[in-house]
Amino acid sequence: MPGSSFGKLFKITTWGESHGPAVGVCIDGCPAGFSLSDYDIQKHLDRRKPGGSELSTGRTEDDKAKILSGIFGGKTTGVPISILIENNNQKSADYIELKDVYRPSHADYTYDAKYGIRDYRGGGRSAGRETVARVAAGAVAIKLLELMDIEISASANCQPIEHLMALKEQGDSAGGIIECVIKGVPAGLGEPVFNKLDAILAQAIFSIGSVKGVEFGAGFKAAEMTGSQHNDSFYFDETVKKRTNNSGGILGGISDGSDIIFRVAIKPVPSISMEQDTINSKNDPVKISVSGRHDVTVVPRIVPVIEAMAALVIIDYILQNLGSKLENVLARHTKG
Amino acid sequence: MPGSSFGKLFKITTWGESHGPAVGVCIDGCPAGFSLSDYDIQKHLDRRKPGGSELSTGRTEDDKAKILSGIFGGKTTGVPISILIENNNQKSADYIELKDVYRPSHADYTYDAKYGIRDYRGGGRSAGRETVARVAAGAVAIKLLELMDIEISASANCQPIEHLMALKEQGDSAGGIIECVIKGVPAGLGEPVFNKLDAILAQAIFSIGSVKGVEFGAGFKAAEMTGSQHNDSFYFDETVKKRTNNSGGILGGISDGSDIIFRVAIKPVPSISMEQDTINSKNDPVKISVSGRHDVTVVPRIVPVIEAMAALVIIDYILQNLGSKLENVLARHTKG
Amino acid sequence: MPGSSFGKLFKITTWGESHGPAVGVCIDGCPAGFSLSDYDIQKHLDRRKPGGSELSTGRTEDDKAKILSGIFGGKTTGVPISILIENNNQKSADYIELKDVYRPSHADYTYDAKYGIRDYRGGGRSAGRETVARVAAGAVAIKLLELMDIEISASANCQPIEHLMALKEQGDSAGGIIECVIKGVPAGLGEPVFNKLDAILAQAIFSIGSVKGVEFGAGFKAAEMTGSQHNDSFYFDETVKKRTNNSGGILGGISDGSDIIFRVAIKPVPSISMEQDTINSKNDPVKISVSGRHDVTVVPRIVPVIEAMAALVIIDYILQNLGSKLENVLARHTKG
Amino acid sequence: MPGSSFGKLFKITTWGESHGPAVGVCIDGCPAGFSLSDYDIQKHLDRRKPGGSELSTGRTEDDKAKILSGIFGGKTTGVPISILIENNNQKSADYIELKDVYRPSHADYTYDAKYGIRDYRGGGRSAGRETVARVAAGAVAIKLLELMDIEISASANCQPIEHLMALKEQGDSAGGIIECVIKGVPAGLGEPVFNKLDAILAQAIFSIGSVKGVEFGAGFKAAEMTGSQHNDSFYFDETVKKRTNNSGGILGGISDGSDIIFRVAIKPVPSISMEQDTINSKNDPVKISVSGRHDVTVVPRIVPVIEAMAALVIIDYILQNLGSKLENVLARHTKG
Repeated sequence: MPGSSFGKLFKITTWGESHGPAVGVCIDGCPAGFSLSDYDIQKHLDRRKPGGSELSTGRTEDDKAKILSGIFGGKTTGVPISILIENNNQKSADYIELKDVYRPSHADYTYDAKYGIRDYRGGGRSAGRETVARVAAGAVAIKLLELMDIEISASANCQPIEHLMALKEQGDSAGGIIECVIKGVPAGLGEPVFNKLDAILAQAIFSIGSVKGVEFGAGFKAAEMTGSQHNDSFYFDETVKKRTNNSGGILGGISDGSDIIFRVAIKPVPSISMEQDTINSKNDPVKISVSGRHDVTVVPRIVPVIEAMAALVIIDYILQNLGSKLENVLARHTKG
Repeated sequence: MPGSSFGKLFKITTWGESHGPAVGVCIDGCPAGFSLSDYDIQKHLDRRKPGGSELSTGRTEDDKAKILSGIFGGKTTGVPISILIENNNQKSADYIELKDVYRPSHADYTYDAKYGIRDYRGGGRSAGRETVARVAAGAVAIKLLELMDIEISASANCQPIEHLMALKEQGDSAGGIIECVIKGVPAGLGEPVFNKLDAILAQAIFSIGSVKGVEFGAGFKAAEMTGSQHNDSFYFDETVKKRTNNSGGILGGISDGSDIIFRVAIKPVPSISMEQDTINSKNDPVKISVSGRHDVTVVPRIVPVIEAMAALVIIDYILQNLGSKLENVLARHTKG
Repeated sequence: MPGSSFGKLFKITTWGESHGPAVGVCIDGCPAGFSLSDYDIQKHLDRRKPGGSELSTGRTEDDKAKILSGIFGGKTTGVPISILIENNNQKSADYIELKDVYRPSHADYTYDAKYGIRDYRGGGRSAGRETVARVAAGAVAIKLLELMDIEISASANCQPIEHLMALKEQGDSAGGIIECVIKGVPAGLGEPVFNKLDAILAQAIFSIGSVKGVEFGAGFKAAEMTGSQHNDSFYFDETVKKRTNNSGGILGGISDGSDIIFRVAIKPVPSISMEQDTINSKNDPVKISVSGRHDVTVVPRIVPVIEAMAALVIIDYILQNLGSKLENVLARHTKG
Repeated sequence: MPGSSFGKLFKITTWGESHGPAVGVCIDGCPAGFSLSDYDIQKHLDRRKPGGSELSTGRTEDDKAKILSGIFGGKTTGVPISILIENNNQKSADYIELKDVYRPSHADYTYDAKYGIRDYRGGGRSAGRETVARVAAGAVAIKLLELMDIEISASANCQPIEHLMALKEQGDSAGGIIECVIKGVPAGLGEPVFNKLDAILAQAIFSIGSVKGVEFGAGFKAAEMTGSQHNDSFYFDETVKKRTNNSGGILGGISDGSDIIFRVAIKPVPSISMEQDTINSKNDPVKISVSGRHDVTVVPRIVPVIEAMAALVIIDYILQNLGSKLENVLARHTKG
């Protein structure tokens, strides 16, 4: 069934695969009267693009965002914002020899199992290429959040460059940890009991390829702490604050006004040039060595994707919270 | 906005709070013609109930499930199944002295921030009591999965009993880790790109109170592995199998036919009798010691809740996958 | 798949069938801080109940609404409001002789075709009994709308009493037309292009049993008018007004500030004591005469159901509209 | 909030406005393994295009559909299908003089009231242009339904050509009635109680601009019939059939295997060159005469849009019905 939409009130739908003509996203539910241009999106796409270092793929993704709808006179009109990014520089030929092979730790086998057909060119829909559309949509969310002084910043705790270069020479790859901090979120965001803020942030982050773990605040360490160590004492200093932030800024699935902090485990890139055992679609054993243009690690490239997904969640929950209190509904309703 | 429904095709809506007259769940979308009785639900509620050991709350929850709709002649009819469990043995009086106090690491403050009103009796909607309804719904899902030879089993890696007894005497509490294994899931479940199987399992698990981390397969360890260490080689032996299972049974957000394995970090119980600093709803500093009936650890009681949520996800994805291939749609359609 | 929920932000889920122990509804998304009691619901149930005249069924439905969750100190807390109404006075025995017969213009055959099983007692889920839950939920919506000076009033243009009495004696039945007027709706409600206000009102009304037609404003007559006859001229008098209201208060799927007006065609009651040809579940031809307690017409009893459904739509769209303009989102966000 | 998606399992999201660079649609949930090409869509767009007669707008819409994703080797892969149609031949200049005027019976005023900003070029999102995207998506649905021998055919009962030509000369316009018949739908489609088949068909049809009424089967006439006149007797002849079809093919919100029949009232085109009274956005009274390229009637052009929407509903409900019976779920599950 459909799985390419995310968000309830600020809702995105992405489409496109690695080696098709384009990828894109449709944003439905963006409030009207918001200044938005191609440039606002472009600057975030530029951050995501590879080619910046020796560690990343040789593929040059010179992504240009085009807004096709939803803007009039430089402002959003409240109707869907469609953004398209053409795919350039794809080399489908690289993949033809792998078309019947199930690459280990890729989605080749599972897509075949599910759909009975697979776009083998570079992973198709399962490729990282799809995240361009998320970053484009996230750019709109990030600009909206800036108006509310909400700031999202993720950073990679990645391996040292020497280690990564050594792995590259061996034809191997690496994973890593990304930490994300969201500052300025007001208390009150989250929709218990199933759409708790951390639950939907987790969905958002796990929906990114290569993610194997997510933890908030003290995270897995909380399992070893006692209540007296873990509990965050409240105090008041201009606003309600906490002495510590083991909760990671969320209590009972609702933001508590502290920084929201979560960490994400990224698995190593599955495409390696070292020889691996696997099977093909006829179930015959084969040996493969994935050549072509691949990153030693994708951790730095996932950073803006995580920021984008976090931004999409936060703006959605700000909208979801508008009707939580009757007094606010009545105040809004009367002033039109 | 609404947050108390979960699932797309096997959809549950829970209601009720800790000290109200009852809690309940409405299951909408259960296939017709399935044998179901109160007893099928009751046996799972009995597993969840406290009072079994010195570690758990003195509160005796003698939960009785009553099915109020959706069954005729012992079978489901395809219409909503409403299940009600009365609340007994609540002692609201225990909580009156805490009614204006924000207990550390509880949801008292965040519910007030969000709604401007709070049911202070035992945590209200944010209390663990709500999970009875999840277990009741999960019981239906588990019984359905048994027909398909899918088995879900979670277990707690909890601290030694001596350690827990010592914490109890100090008025402190503990958390822990729960591991869940799902056997027999066919390859092909999951709805990329946002409703990947791991993404929605993560939402389901993070929607349970006290969860601070979720990881699949190698999880956070994957971040330190190389591609050659982490990749799971495919081989064929009657069916497609993998030499290792670092993926945790999910590739590209779709089940790969291996066991689905995930681990969950549970924070220590926030209600402790040791004195803590906090504030009240007027922002004055106060000291509290949470007396009343509390568990030293809730880890064992969360085990059946995790199984219930996992079962709800898996049955939903089995239904979601019915239309993935045209040939299956046509076959089904023609035979009516 | 699930079909018993309605509404996006003010979302109801109904459950229960004609001859089960109870029917009920769970309201999820009601703003917090709203005064609500059993009585607010009871007064609407009393309007719906039969037994008031010679025209209606002899069945006495002495419905008592019980709120089971979501209220604390007389106010809504923002969490789900569960309302239960027990079924009394059911006589399942009346239906046993019809258990294998497909009554003409009832849902007996279609439920069997869909689910392969049918609760034959009084129509089960397809019976009018289910609308009690709608009226209960609608009562909450109506009380909310009263705070905003929005008033909903439906009335039946039903046949003369003499005609209906004559039909009753013949063992026949009648249908009718109901007109509904909604006053005080501000301009701006509706979510193009698929969730236009008239589109969702139409879904809401057609979801009521026995409805065969819905028209807004000039309705089917509009098909015969010219543009110059049909167009409603705008003018200004304290607010934007229209000289005529052929649009029925909705333009482009969005309310225009005029009265919203629609008319509903109700088919005659299908249960008649006159002899009819039909078949049973083995496809054998049979003759039936539906005895038991039946109304000559259900038109008057559908009036409060239409008001309830209309109220549920309007309150939902008021909530949906809170985030339509950026300036309102920012104003709301900053004041918390 | 978002309103540009339709369908649960075969879900479309449309975007684009009258005078932007393009309109488009993303189809999410189309089963994999289905042969589809640009041509399949193009032939339906050609039916919708104006310019065929003296009655329609001088605007030539030479629409070319481009599929941008979701197809590999000529077949659907199960991932989103994005279709883009460029806008040509727009003359925004035509609309500049009307930019501050609220045209009677158009959505100018209501969009301003809702969003505080309006794309005045040709109606923007509220213009008929958006329906190109619906027809494109409907083409996919229609081709799928053909595989199941389901056929949808709508036809206009429009005024005589002489009458229309006379109206054109007067600068006036006309509406009309469209009847739609769906043949071959199996019994069992529909999801009570809120997503009844007729309820969602009604939503789908009322979501089309200019629709003022929808009726099924006997429709508004049913209100004047007696039960003995209206009831459709069942009989058996190879399959379950009915002697009459006053129900319009739907009983209790579920298809009964007969033809589904509904009629739609279309209001006259609001753009007329006769002088009309209205106001501008400053609330000043003004007189307008809408020049530019306009149809005397849009009834014939709405015919394929109604077919498209009906097809989208039917295919969605076929998918929704796959899991209604446990035996079918188990059969499907075991064969993978």
